[in-house]
Amino acid sequence: MEPTSTKLITRWTDTEPIQIEDELVVEEPLEIRVGQQSLIVVMRTPGHDFELAAGFLYTESLITSGDDIEIIAYCDEEDSGTQSSGLSSLQNIVNVRLTEGLDLDAESGWQRNFHANASCGLCGKMTIESVRQQVQPLNSGFHANQGVFYKLNDQLRKAQSVFEKTGGLHAAGLFDEKGELLIIREDIGRHNAVDKVIGHALLADLVPLEQHILMVSGRASFEIVQKALFARIPIIAAVSAASTLAVDLAEEGNLTLIGFMRGQSMAVYSCPERVHRE
Amino acid sequence: MEPTSTKLITRWTDTEPIQIEDELVVEEPLEIRVGQQSLIVVMRTPGHDFELAAGFLYTESLITSGDDIEIIAYCDEEDSGTQSSGLSSLQNIVNVRLTEGLDLDAESGWQRNFHANASCGLCGKMTIESVRQQVQPLNSGFHANQGVFYKLNDQLRKAQSVFEKTGGLHAAGLFDEKGELLIIREDIGRHNAVDKVIGHALLADLVPLEQHILMVSGRASFEIVQKALFARIPIIAAVSAASTLAVDLAEEGNLTLIGFMRGQSMAVYSCPERVHRE
Repeated sequence: MEPTSTKLITRWTDTEPIQIEDELVVEEPLEIRVGQQSLIVVMRTPGHDFELAAGFLYTESLITSGDDIEIIAYCDEEDSGTQSSGLSSLQNIVNVRLTEGLDLDAESGWQRNFHANASCGLCGKMTIESVRQQVQPLNSGFHANQGVFYKLNDQLRKAQSVFEKTGGLHAAGLFDEKGELLIIREDIGRHNAVDKVIGHALLADLVPLEQHILMVSGRASFEIVQKALFARIPIIAAVSAASTLAVDLAEEGNLTLIGFMRGQSMAVYSCPERVHRE
Repeated sequence: MEPTSTKLITRWTDTEPIQIEDELVVEEPLEIRVGQQSLIVVMRTPGHDFELAAGFLYTESLITSGDDIEIIAYCDEEDSGTQSSGLSSLQNIVNVRLTEGLDLDAESGWQRNFHANASCGLCGKMTIESVRQQVQPLNSGFHANQGVFYKLNDQLRKAQSVFEKTGGLHAAGLFDEKGELLIIREDIGRHNAVDKVIGHALLADLVPLEQHILMVSGRASFEIVQKALFARIPIIAAVSAASTLAVDLAEEGNLTLIGFMRGQSMAVYSCPERVHRE
């Protein structure tokens, strides 16, 4: 499936309305299964689905390393079988097979908790405390010069190919200590873009990301900080504002959280010692 | 709790970094209980929590009218009891008591499905089809002149008091057929802002909203369209782009979906007959 799709729309301005072809961002459900058991459905933009599945499992603490995954594949017709949820395409179901001996249920009842605590926006976790308990504070001595930060946004925007066409996507980018863009992922869901980036790193055996900066095109919420902490990313830069809870968690996790990262200006909310003056 | 909170941050520009007081948008978990049973936790900006709970239950099809609700209240210390999830404040737990004789479990196994199908971004629904089946297409003859649409965005922005202070919030506004703003709600979560608006209308006995326009400050996703359909709102206008699935559902539901609603310009994705030329 493509990340965009064309559609005939009516454009109104102050003249006669006209019919034009417009490029829309694709939104489709992705059902993530573990061992053929349905775990969750996320609304996502197709593309890099295996990374999304891997990143989701990792940043939700359902797996602890890339080695926990044996294989990720789209379901074939046979697999989908009676469990088929009527999703519109088999390309909308991925199955993660864990390494032999691993089992979500066996590991501290995670799957049970996950299901019992249906929770939107917290992805199965009922409490802030339960998240906080799972994440060890960072002790990374990583830092970067202010000039490195000032060039992040520009790079991210230039690399946002789908956004350019549709105006409808969030982006997350992973940068190295020199401010070079290593990977960018776009998705209609803010969290998905981050999960795809982290999933990519996980599958490429790059985690923990202790010498990296994560940049997101939108706001910095609690969950973005949570995901970065799981991947041990010491710095997050966001184009927009950060929430109180994001800042609280960043402080507790010893993570540097930056907002309003635009041009030659930024707001550092926590752990400012990782930003150095040139 | 207030929707914003001040925090000392470090602002970097091209001069020396300075410490300033900044206004942050508050993000806190809200646990929604029905009959003291925990249903879900959403991350939200405090304020209008009862509307959020009512709107959520309604647009997730867990209740079918405002009459289904007997009372909504914050939990007191006694209530929270053993079920306490360690949320940071009792102001973060609301309990909805349904009208006598009503029971989520009894009604077509909704709660069971809801829990069994933990699903982020789809709030408990595993399939697109299950949503589509529940919503009857609109047959509203409601329409408005193009000039009405052109003034919506301006009004919404002017009324966004918290956004002005923090730059960190989504807004949803309900407008009448003349384009007058009836109600606006802001929240760190896009869906929450819509749920608060619809919850307000539900509790004020204004649903179905068949002569109304819903305007949202961000993108138009599948879920926004779904929520509007439940409340029978015939027109959605979004400041940003619409996704493919949002347009598909809008077409099926006979709902007029408008995107890129900025100044004297808009993109009409579905049911253009509700937009009239002046």
